[in-house]
Amino acid sequence: MLLKQFLRIGLVGFSKKSCRSFTKQPDFTKNTYQIERGFYNYLQEPHLNYFKKILGDDGNRVITDESLLEHYNIDWFKNVKGSSKVVLKPKTTEEVSKIVSYCNANKLAVCTQGGNTGYSAGAVPVFDEVILSMELMNQILDIDVNSGNVVCQSGIVLENLDNILAEKGMMVPLDLGAKGSCQIGGNVATNAGGLRLVRYGNMHGNVLGLEVVKANGEVLDCLKVVRKDNSGLHIKNLFIGSEGTLGIITKVALRCPIRPKTQHVAFLGLQNYEKVLKTLRKCRQDLDEIISAIEVMDSLSLEWGEQHTKLSSPIGRYPYYLLIETSGSNEQHDEAKIQGFLESALNGHYILNGVVTGEPSKVKSLWAIRERLPEGFKNHGWVGMYDLSMPTDQFYNVVDELRTYLKNSADYVFGFGHLGDGNLHLHVITKKYDKRLETDVEKFLMDKILPMKGSMSSEHGLGFIKRKYLPAVNSSESYHFMTDLKKLLDPNRILNPYKVFP
Amino acid sequence: MLLKQFLRIGLVGFSKKSCRSFTKQPDFTKNTYQIERGFYNYLQEPHLNYFKKILGDDGNRVITDESLLEHYNIDWFKNVKGSSKVVLKPKTTEEVSKIVSYCNANKLAVCTQGGNTGYSAGAVPVFDEVILSMELMNQILDIDVNSGNVVCQSGIVLENLDNILAEKGMMVPLDLGAKGSCQIGGNVATNAGGLRLVRYGNMHGNVLGLEVVKANGEVLDCLKVVRKDNSGLHIKNLFIGSEGTLGIITKVALRCPIRPKTQHVAFLGLQNYEKVLKTLRKCRQDLDEIISAIEVMDSLSLEWGEQHTKLSSPIGRYPYYLLIETSGSNEQHDEAKIQGFLESALNGHYILNGVVTGEPSKVKSLWAIRERLPEGFKNHGWVGMYDLSMPTDQFYNVVDELRTYLKNSADYVFGFGHLGDGNLHLHVITKKYDKRLETDVEKFLMDKILPMKGSMSSEHGLGFIKRKYLPAVNSSESYHFMTDLKKLLDPNRILNPYKVFP
Repeated sequence: MLLKQFLRIGLVGFSKKSCRSFTKQPDFTKNTYQIERGFYNYLQEPHLNYFKKILGDDGNRVITDESLLEHYNIDWFKNVKGSSKVVLKPKTTEEVSKIVSYCNANKLAVCTQGGNTGYSAGAVPVFDEVILSMELMNQILDIDVNSGNVVCQSGIVLENLDNILAEKGMMVPLDLGAKGSCQIGGNVATNAGGLRLVRYGNMHGNVLGLEVVKANGEVLDCLKVVRKDNSGLHIKNLFIGSEGTLGIITKVALRCPIRPKTQHVAFLGLQNYEKVLKTLRKCRQDLDEIISAIEVMDSLSLEWGEQHTKLSSPIGRYPYYLLIETSGSNEQHDEAKIQGFLESALNGHYILNGVVTGEPSKVKSLWAIRERLPEGFKNHGWVGMYDLSMPTDQFYNVVDELRTYLKNSADYVFGFGHLGDGNLHLHVITKKYDKRLETDVEKFLMDKILPMKGSMSSEHGLGFIKRKYLPAVNSSESYHFMTDLKKLLDPNRILNPYKVFP
Repeated sequence: MLLKQFLRIGLVGFSKKSCRSFTKQPDFTKNTYQIERGFYNYLQEPHLNYFKKILGDDGNRVITDESLLEHYNIDWFKNVKGSSKVVLKPKTTEEVSKIVSYCNANKLAVCTQGGNTGYSAGAVPVFDEVILSMELMNQILDIDVNSGNVVCQSGIVLENLDNILAEKGMMVPLDLGAKGSCQIGGNVATNAGGLRLVRYGNMHGNVLGLEVVKANGEVLDCLKVVRKDNSGLHIKNLFIGSEGTLGIITKVALRCPIRPKTQHVAFLGLQNYEKVLKTLRKCRQDLDEIISAIEVMDSLSLEWGEQHTKLSSPIGRYPYYLLIETSGSNEQHDEAKIQGFLESALNGHYILNGVVTGEPSKVKSLWAIRERLPEGFKNHGWVGMYDLSMPTDQFYNVVDELRTYLKNSADYVFGFGHLGDGNLHLHVITKKYDKRLETDVEKFLMDKILPMKGSMSSEHGLGFIKRKYLPAVNSSESYHFMTDLKKLLDPNRILNPYKVFP
């Protein structure tokens, strides 16, 4: 039995930065996509003078230097590029309010930017929108250890916030690959999911309060700092996942769970997807309250990952793999639970093989196999990334059916993802971008996913790239209600135009 | 050491029903409260004929019999009484849509009613609103064990739903004293909190999808059945906690956690509130993932409860009491964790005494001491019930300060509640209702709670009784946004008038 006996695996050093650097330079979005600029005013000298009056004239908070602007104009994936002429860096809600109110009165479009780590190009300008960078709004305002919460400005980097909470034995109930760059305001604005949603839930469950600046500069104070509040309509929730199109989040109050004392990861090999589902059920029954992640990969995804990352499976080749993570308050108890679960899963022939570890460096190594999987895809050519949610028993039906449907028109179809959350990442790769293939795949997936009451954009939002989904995946009544809300909150449509709404 | 040694406690038999029956009969709300009827039409024969055409003419689904109507016109607390002439009992979304669309066109006000168990008189008519009872919309539509969710109509009784899920090893992530009567749609519409929010979170974190009928009869299909969805604005969340004023919830998709295999309750005596807070922190550190409730009571509340319920503390008298419940997947592990926690809390002099049990009947007995506490209050005379949230370290400062402030103008001030959620139930009792006292207490509490970013209505909503809070506890910008939303969704204000909005 391999359990508890962690095999040597040949890991190479890597850093988060290395995942992010590729050399291509995108063309301007307006050239790549046939899209027309909205009827906004162009930035002029008097506008800049007003911004400098508010933020100072030393070049640190009103950025117009071309070489500095590029960083804010291009997205994480280097897929899109805007042509903004100015980045503003407010430090206070009052400054945000003055800027936005002025932009609204002068019909200047505004693109709010957090860490600029999004997958859907929601945080970079499409044309020449004024970029409102939240990076200097990074103050922690209060930590309440007894109640288990924190209040902070929205521009604080997720990892920085988490490190400060760690000193108090608390944590941010959210963990992302991009945690070193992404900001809590962006996490809220995109309702970020991440690796441990199965344990801590989504932002709607974790955000206690928000302060939001509306398009007209009005400050909406919904900054309650309590877990229960029913003293009015739940308007703060409307801004969660609104991707900067309804208002600008300036402060966040967040519940903070206790930081677990111990973590274990099991990496398992399985014969078929039916056994994956059986193991999932057993895992929930046996490990329930200590589960913090349940990830799935198939053989093709893992093999491709192995080839491109020099990481390898510690247990050899199997049709399916599960990575199960537990976090808890008692190491012995967690170990005993995992051992019990793995033994019964082996004895019941649910799993064929597996390793498990509680050693932090080895936990990290096992996670790397899963987390670095997508790295291999992007060097092949074009990657169609689909971020789907559906009933978990349908995951690999959809993958297999798409493979059959596409036959040779795509080079590979990869399926892997957050099984515990019902979130499948499906990647279709080809040597070259093919518009017709893209349309085909989207139609195929919508026809499958929508009747299952699933989601075509689970954790990456719509942003610029998927804005066409809005009317396609929502009922016409829902879509019209969304556009009514946009009109109500931002009648001049200055907030993050060309995003979410097509 | 008393740990593990459960003392005999003199419990008398009781049932949930007995908590609910008191003999007073309320006067009509329109007489008790000086309130004017809105400009709605009065119910007439042609209206009834239309309803009968949709729901049938056998008297089962269009109720006009005076003796049957009373049950629907009076609230749980028998504080208020409406004068509706008709109760409608749809079975399908289509029927709800037809009824509401007709009422909207004919300016008939509508009061949607679930289990009618609310504390704020939000679910009974104030005048002659048409009552839309959801009790026949009680079908379960789908249970997905692999994904861990359920889809049902909104009128199913919480306990019935939970019992059916129990057969699959799952549960509703919500537990209330009223579970035998309240309906899941009402729970969502009021964002119900309950006893185990500390573990499972609020409805925003647990509701996966909703189907809602708008005031104009349009059906909003937001019935996603997945845990992650960012494919549009999060409009479903707007209906959570909207208390029937924005739309009628007809279907609910809910995440369902694994049902715990084991449960323990510890009942502890403590010297002062500082020790309560120390114990709270220690409990979170040691028990973290298995905590399912943390309740607090002070000596006055418990003594009063003892006198009126014939239940008694199993550990004698102490200034403060904590009731801590754990739920988990492994009995031995949970027992060991609790023992460890209690021993270190005793050795550290955080707690003075305590009992702990894992036996279901004794767990129930210990809970009864906490749950039946409020029974004693209501026979004394007038009860002012305040449902507050605030930082946990302020709980008994507020109670003590109010006691000092009121001196002899109230007979008693009781403080107890859900410490783990930061939710204090504060009851002020006097022999007779005193308008000036009520105003005084409200002002005192608002002055304390609002600067702390707390809540004046944590889990009981605003309904009819607390509707005046809406402009008082929300900023004017938030209040105006709420009224804008009401106008957008229900321009004729036919949905649950006189509730939430003053």
